Amino acid sequence: MDPQPQPPAADSDSDAMPREQQREEAPPGYVPPISPEDVAAVEALLGYEFKDKSLVSEALTHGSFYLPYRSGDSTYERLEYLGDAVLTCLVSRDVFLTYRDLPPGPLTRLRAANVDKEKLARVAVDHGIHRFLRHKAPKLDEQIADFVKELCQYEYHSNGLLDAPKVLSDIVESLIGAIYLDSKHNQELVWQVFRNLADPLISLETLGRHPVSELLEFGQKTGRTVDIFKDGWVKDTKVDVFVDGVLVASATYAQKKEIASNRAAKAALDKLKEMSGQSDVQSAPGEAPEPLDELDRSGALQL
Amino acid sequence: MDPQPQPPAADSDSDAMPREQQREEAPPGYVPPISPEDVAAVEALLGYEFKDKSLVSEALTHGSFYLPYRSGDSTYERLEYLGDAVLTCLVSRDVFLTYRDLPPGPLTRLRAANVDKEKLARVAVDHGIHRFLRHKAPKLDEQIADFVKELCQYEYHSNGLLDAPKVLSDIVESLIGAIYLDSKHNQELVWQVFRNLADPLISLETLGRHPVSELLEFGQKTGRTVDIFKDGWVKDTKVDVFVDGVLVASATYAQKKEIASNRAAKAALDKLKEMSGQSDVQSAPGEAPEPLDELDRSGALQL
Repeated sequence: MDPQPQPPAADSDSDAMPREQQREEAPPGYVPPISPEDVAAVEALLGYEFKDKSLVSEALTHGSFYLPYRSGDSTYERLEYLGDAVLTCLVSRDVFLTYRDLPPGPLTRLRAANVDKEKLARVAVDHGIHRFLRHKAPKLDEQIADFVKELCQYEYHSNGLLDAPKVLSDIVESLIGAIYLDSKHNQELVWQVFRNLADPLISLETLGRHPVSELLEFGQKTGRTVDIFKDGWVKDTKVDVFVDGVLVASATYAQKKEIASNRAAKAALDKLKEMSGQSDVQSAPGEAPEPLDELDRSGALQL
Repeated sequence: MDPQPQPPAADSDSDAMPREQQREEAPPGYVPPISPEDVAAVEALLGYEFKDKSLVSEALTHGSFYLPYRSGDSTYERLEYLGDAVLTCLVSRDVFLTYRDLPPGPLTRLRAANVDKEKLARVAVDHGIHRFLRHKAPKLDEQIADFVKELCQYEYHSNGLLDAPKVLSDIVESLIGAIYLDSKHNQELVWQVFRNLADPLISLETLGRHPVSELLEFGQKTGRTVDIFKDGWVKDTKVDVFVDGVLVASATYAQKKEIASNRAAKAALDKLKEMSGQSDVQSAPGEAPEPLDELDRSGALQL
């Protein structure tokens, strides 16, 4: 999937004038263009040739790129707003037409898994789109590098264990918004582009579950008391999982309590399964029997 | 806007066979059709003629209509899921193209005001679409009648003071989903239909604010302590608003805490404005100076 490596685009401008000077002379809203080579590379990644090349520059420009930011400086945010809505609509339609009898609840979960932050960030990384992002945010490159490194551990989706940098999903949405505008609102063309970029889409068969939901459901089904304690958060950014009052697992993740909770729940599920003699620690796919149902039926789980 | 009155459609079937017998002989997923007269009336309201008339029946059928419900009985829910996404996309595009320089925050608020539960319920009532809903939910007709009665107090939107029955917005979304499918995904046609139904769309000029946000912002700007106490909720479904420790207003609304909070905040704002000598109790539109800014500037507000 990955195209030929390109030089980093963050600082490339299309002519020789220093950026500061360009900016002072430009009207508010002016977006310094990325180089024609980079535009062509992005077009090749997307499989779409833009009539209005300035949309590519706008779609790949983070607010921090302009530091110091002036009111009216154009960033990818408006295109992201549009692309998000277009993508949600098209994925809703695809799921609706693919699963003719599925009720709205599972339809909504399937849609969410295909347009959420992690899935779209994965699309950006899979195709190397993130290398064309223009920004000056201090720690962003490091965060992206960490995400890229961890991503390969999960075939389709981590279901809440990874903390995807939002900027990565943002630029997929902004590029989708840009194509929608540039193609004069051609939904079918936009869908073709996204379908190729997002392959394989998450299906009912590969749809996983968030560990916290799975763990809480386990508690309900087995009559066990599951407590996810976030009280340690302030002190040491730690989340503990207790089952019937016994500490089963903990996890820490300083940046976000939600990620730590998911990781603690996943660790608890793994432990519970290990104790009941199961080796499969993957979350259950949409249609297969749930591992914790099996735990339940086998009666093997004894804390 | 209201068309000629039609006979209630809730119990009309297209032929003389009793419904129970129809249902027993019908395969799961069968939707008893509404009468051709009602289909024609709905088409006239929408300004769209369906190729597949069964979509009209499906779009107007609430789950309670089937009581006792059998697995597989078709309700409007799948079409509602689709229509919601289509509508959000089209309104996003309209707002994006109308306000060329507006940042994503206000774009999102404008979009939300035009596709939220109250706005779409208003669309249903304005055009009499609700009279074709098929259901057997015990208190629904009463709730709808109450909403219709209260609606006329607000020109564009109550901004959180009215509790619109969700079923009314649902059937607008399901009909939009039905038109989108029936027209083979013709966005422009769907937009034309919605544009006519929803006229006037809420613009930046007519966009109001939720009273709770307005009140909290007032507190921030004037350095006053605003407390919205919902503690009375469990006991007497009451919400109290205190400013600098003084009880300014209360409101009760048994069904939903959020509506009671909005009503209490609105009552508090009205009181504060009355005390400062202003007579206008409408929330501020998007671009006009905010009444509470004026309160602030006039310095007339003394508790």
